[in-house]
Amino acid sequence: MPPKITAHRAPGTRDFLPDEMALRRKVRRVIEEAFERYGFQPLETPAVERLDVLTGKYGEEADRLIFRILKRGDELEAGKASGELADLALRYDLTVPLARVVAMHRGELTYPFKRYQIQPVWRAERPQKGRYREFVQCDADIVGTASVTADAEIIALTHDILQRLGIPGFRIFINHRKLLQAVAQAAYVGDDRFLEMCLIIDKADKIGLAGVWQELEAKGFSGRQIDLLKGMLSAREEPSAALKHIAPYIDETDPGRVALEEMTRLFSDLEALGVPAERIALRLYLARGLDYYTGPIFETLVEEPRIGSVTGGGRYDTLIGMFSGESIPATGTTIGIERLFDVMRELQLFGESAEASARVLVTVFSEESRGASLQIATELRRAGISAEVYLEAPKKLGKQFAYADKKRIPFVVVAGPDEIARGEVTLKTLATGSQAAVPRDRLIDEVRLLGGR
Amino acid sequence: MPPKITAHRAPGTRDFLPDEMALRRKVRRVIEEAFERYGFQPLETPAVERLDVLTGKYGEEADRLIFRILKRGDELEAGKASGELADLALRYDLTVPLARVVAMHRGELTYPFKRYQIQPVWRAERPQKGRYREFVQCDADIVGTASVTADAEIIALTHDILQRLGIPGFRIFINHRKLLQAVAQAAYVGDDRFLEMCLIIDKADKIGLAGVWQELEAKGFSGRQIDLLKGMLSAREEPSAALKHIAPYIDETDPGRVALEEMTRLFSDLEALGVPAERIALRLYLARGLDYYTGPIFETLVEEPRIGSVTGGGRYDTLIGMFSGESIPATGTTIGIERLFDVMRELQLFGESAEASARVLVTVFSEESRGASLQIATELRRAGISAEVYLEAPKKLGKQFAYADKKRIPFVVVAGPDEIARGEVTLKTLATGSQAAVPRDRLIDEVRLLGGR
Repeated sequence: MPPKITAHRAPGTRDFLPDEMALRRKVRRVIEEAFERYGFQPLETPAVERLDVLTGKYGEEADRLIFRILKRGDELEAGKASGELADLALRYDLTVPLARVVAMHRGELTYPFKRYQIQPVWRAERPQKGRYREFVQCDADIVGTASVTADAEIIALTHDILQRLGIPGFRIFINHRKLLQAVAQAAYVGDDRFLEMCLIIDKADKIGLAGVWQELEAKGFSGRQIDLLKGMLSAREEPSAALKHIAPYIDETDPGRVALEEMTRLFSDLEALGVPAERIALRLYLARGLDYYTGPIFETLVEEPRIGSVTGGGRYDTLIGMFSGESIPATGTTIGIERLFDVMRELQLFGESAEASARVLVTVFSEESRGASLQIATELRRAGISAEVYLEAPKKLGKQFAYADKKRIPFVVVAGPDEIARGEVTLKTLATGSQAAVPRDRLIDEVRLLGGR
Repeated sequence: MPPKITAHRAPGTRDFLPDEMALRRKVRRVIEEAFERYGFQPLETPAVERLDVLTGKYGEEADRLIFRILKRGDELEAGKASGELADLALRYDLTVPLARVVAMHRGELTYPFKRYQIQPVWRAERPQKGRYREFVQCDADIVGTASVTADAEIIALTHDILQRLGIPGFRIFINHRKLLQAVAQAAYVGDDRFLEMCLIIDKADKIGLAGVWQELEAKGFSGRQIDLLKGMLSAREEPSAALKHIAPYIDETDPGRVALEEMTRLFSDLEALGVPAERIALRLYLARGLDYYTGPIFETLVEEPRIGSVTGGGRYDTLIGMFSGESIPATGTTIGIERLFDVMRELQLFGESAEASARVLVTVFSEESRGASLQIATELRRAGISAEVYLEAPKKLGKQFAYADKKRIPFVVVAGPDEIARGEVTLKTLATGSQAAVPRDRLIDEVRLLGGR
């Protein structure tokens, strides 16, 4: 007997047992199919990147959350002297790897390059409920075109996915970075305070607009500035009403004109793409934290449960070029697949879908009839029906039925010596307890009839 | 314009661009479907494990190949003092994580637990052609039964997968650890030299049996021992002939009796499971390096290209229990998915399967007709047909056709103002150049008829 060693898992990581895997794969398949219907193609990059590829891209605080991999052998010894202990790191998001791929594989890609990527990322955050150190990200991006239609496609895709997953009460909130710039200009907020203003108004979702005005005042924005922002940002969220409301304030500025034109086109594209009006809103105070956005920005909120945004993205025309030294326009979104699991679990949207892998258990009556049972399982498998054979030494049939029941295998085949002699098997449906003698050569058809696939 | 930063990839890692992804997913799907037909269920474990879970399990040399993750924050400072710089590590194989899962989730699993797992592992080996530091492993194991039928199922599953992938000229070589023990006993090789003997005879594949006898002699095995081994190991590989040949030498020993009985049952189970006789062989000198095997062992070789084994596995009744402190019988195999890709690429078994994601490109004739094109794409997508819209500012149709061609999109839809006015679109098949006017409401049917899916 081997000595016992403690089994424990790294903090913030999870095992996915078969039932959970079935749910995750179901969601993943819906998302992949949607991506592919829109002409997005899959990309995978390694989990391990060079450390210098990742550092300095996410900001100082995030840099500390990058998992670093210890050097090995002689390099580790040298590293101990120099203090440079790591040379590699774990993927922190899917955007920087995309930028690296675009720089390294320029000639092999056709632009616009519509790629999706569903892979884990790692962040050394303090683990807590719903926050993991290893979790799956799911990104779709269109690289190499500045067209607003690309942004519209990303939003339509988002809508399509949430719709197909059956998420109720979701709404996609849209804004435009240049609209925010124009608003800042119209409110006499200088470039030096633009990001600060964005960060404050972005909190409206949590602290309400009243809270925003308070905080702006506390931070020293003038009464005139706040009044102007109040006037501009308190529009209704229906897109054409919002645009009509904001236009007079900003249509004299360059960013204002660009933003109004692009937003008008975006909403008309969204209509052509079949996105229902009630699912979208123009939220003028939506800013999204990251400062690399350059055009339309968007995020999706669900009504219940209130767990923050389940998707988020926007146009970022300078980031992808960081490794190639040129500006390459791009737009995209993250689908918060882990949060969507949580929403779907909380709302019990999965139903009874935790599928056992096998549909049929072929029991083994005795050692002598084992061969016959193996043959029956082989026939079922060849017909594409997943089947298990009872592997242990033949036990009372009741025990074998209990095994099927525990594994949620819906159908059981009994092939005892009497049945075999008559060229028959007994097919039993566990849920109802009903059973019938079936000629051997009719078994596959019968299982299919009963929904055994 | 952003400053240029060097883009480079970690050594021994790969990016998988869409064409490559399509091939990899095709292979993966075949394997997953086979697993599920046999009633195996998916499991996923985290990439990151606690360092102490991985070290001391693979042997000293392999321990050096485990990628270690640097501690963070205060713990790193403390680690610099103590010399313990790492607390976590990257998954090295899929077996130790399975053992950890079995120990941690005992109550949630139903035994026999038939699990499959397809996930990357990391090894800090010197990268070279065909050897990577990050690569996908693909394991199927049956945990919790000592039944030989479980071993037979693993072998039948292996056969099924290689058959379905279209691998020509493969053969599964089978032996039994206890058969080797009995052979050693019959040749008066003591327990102290058993592993050494195994390692030498296992080389027969590379150095031939003549080379084996030479090496045994050089290592000080006696002439009598070598003569006995010669007599035993030079049997034909047809299972019943091989068993008949070896039986008289070993049927008086305990391991010999067990092995002969299990092997007889194994080959009879394989026949019942429909594995053709010409695909299997009993190779008495097959030993497989790892010393944790306790029962049947097996590996698959392909005739061409000669790249070593493409699958390998066996029964290991003590390993899984290492975290729970009890013996839990288990058997399983690794499907060498990366090697199979190489074989399939070398033998050109993929055909023209590098599928473009989209089946249809909807061109955009002019800014005014963009909305109509978006609507057409939406209709196609809703019908499950993957469609792209030309995203850039409308260009000459020839340019848009060239884009479709480059992306291997087979069908193109043109919806100019004339067509729109007539309630028609033009559907063009790029491969043949043929095109036809199609009523708008017939488009989906026409695309399906032409094989657009």
